[in-house]
Amino acid sequence: MPKKAATSPWAPSSERGQQRQVKRDAVLATAAQLFNERGFHATSLDDIAARLNVSKPTLYYYVKNKDEILIECVRKGLQMMTEGIEATRSAGGKAIDQLTACMRIYTRIVTQDFGMCVIRISDDEMPQQNRTELRRLKSGIDMAFRRLVTEGIAEGSIQPCDPKMAAFAIAGALSWIGRWYESGGDYQPDEIATQLTAMLLKGILQGPAVA
Amino acid sequence: MPKKAATSPWAPSSERGQQRQVKRDAVLATAAQLFNERGFHATSLDDIAARLNVSKPTLYYYVKNKDEILIECVRKGLQMMTEGIEATRSAGGKAIDQLTACMRIYTRIVTQDFGMCVIRISDDEMPQQNRTELRRLKSGIDMAFRRLVTEGIAEGSIQPCDPKMAAFAIAGALSWIGRWYESGGDYQPDEIATQLTAMLLKGILQGPAVA
Repeated sequence: MPKKAATSPWAPSSERGQQRQVKRDAVLATAAQLFNERGFHATSLDDIAARLNVSKPTLYYYVKNKDEILIECVRKGLQMMTEGIEATRSAGGKAIDQLTACMRIYTRIVTQDFGMCVIRISDDEMPQQNRTELRRLKSGIDMAFRRLVTEGIAEGSIQPCDPKMAAFAIAGALSWIGRWYESGGDYQPDEIATQLTAMLLKGILQGPAVA
Repeated sequence: MPKKAATSPWAPSSERGQQRQVKRDAVLATAAQLFNERGFHATSLDDIAARLNVSKPTLYYYVKNKDEILIECVRKGLQMMTEGIEATRSAGGKAIDQLTACMRIYTRIVTQDFGMCVIRISDDEMPQQNRTELRRLKSGIDMAFRRLVTEGIAEGSIQPCDPKMAAFAIAGALSWIGRWYESGGDYQPDEIATQLTAMLLKGILQGPAVA
């Protein structure tokens, strides 16, 4: 009859997989932070390892190279946007309310590290083989905004306009936040969302005086 | 008595200087076009030389290297914006009309090659020693938009709002054009300017029905 195995100093494989995922996520989060602080080109794997207090060889257990890290960071940002928009769509309600909610979600994400990578890193800097996938994700987000504008026009909450152009105006003004936003700066994400959403929906022009 | 010199096959030096400038401008214009088509990293000096039907060594007579070309392209785009805004300011008139004119100028420039470089090439890709100068030019443009909004509020044409945030919304929506615009695509620059300017100034929300 076999003896009961002594307690192994290695965690069960299921747990190891989970730990690996947690650590991989930490590598990506730290990388995204550094890319936004210093720029993609100026950030080395050594910088990422140093901030995590590990050696560079340790990083290679979790990621292949800097390009893989970059793609994962941008993909995560785009997935957060896509999921936020889909959750809002599923919840239903008036198109204008859904659009407003999506604008707030988008604003919040571009002030966070993964979302900021989406905006700050140009397509040009992505490895060629991943551009199609990332463009598809971006295009899906664009299409969601266009559909919301189209539905808003249909329900009478939005003025007749070109939904493509309106979606570009919204995405442009909100994406730009990812360029100028500084964590701990003058503006909080919620405040930015409130102000920019109001400006884009109502405009900045002084309307005729209300009697 | 010295003989009159035979006609020289070399142009007088003043004319040579002028010709050099014309050729240097052609190098920059071609480079900007290629950067926008293929991306900065994917464009080589050989590509630029090939499109100009010259050899790569010939390029070195006009520019030092690819980095110098990049800086010059972005600088030219920023100068065009700055000059356009300054000319509008000098012409005077109501702040809201000046703002509208500046928005049209900015739109036109970001649909052209040098202006598109300003938007598509990230700070991260610029040589370190030039970032301060280019940021100063960008900041000047941002400040001009803020001042126009501030003056618009003072004259009563623009709603009381945070001019910094309004300038970011305007610059963001208009700069984004430089990302999605394609020459020969569905939209002409003038049409984009008209639509986006109206959306940003008046918003897209359906106002209360006019009696």
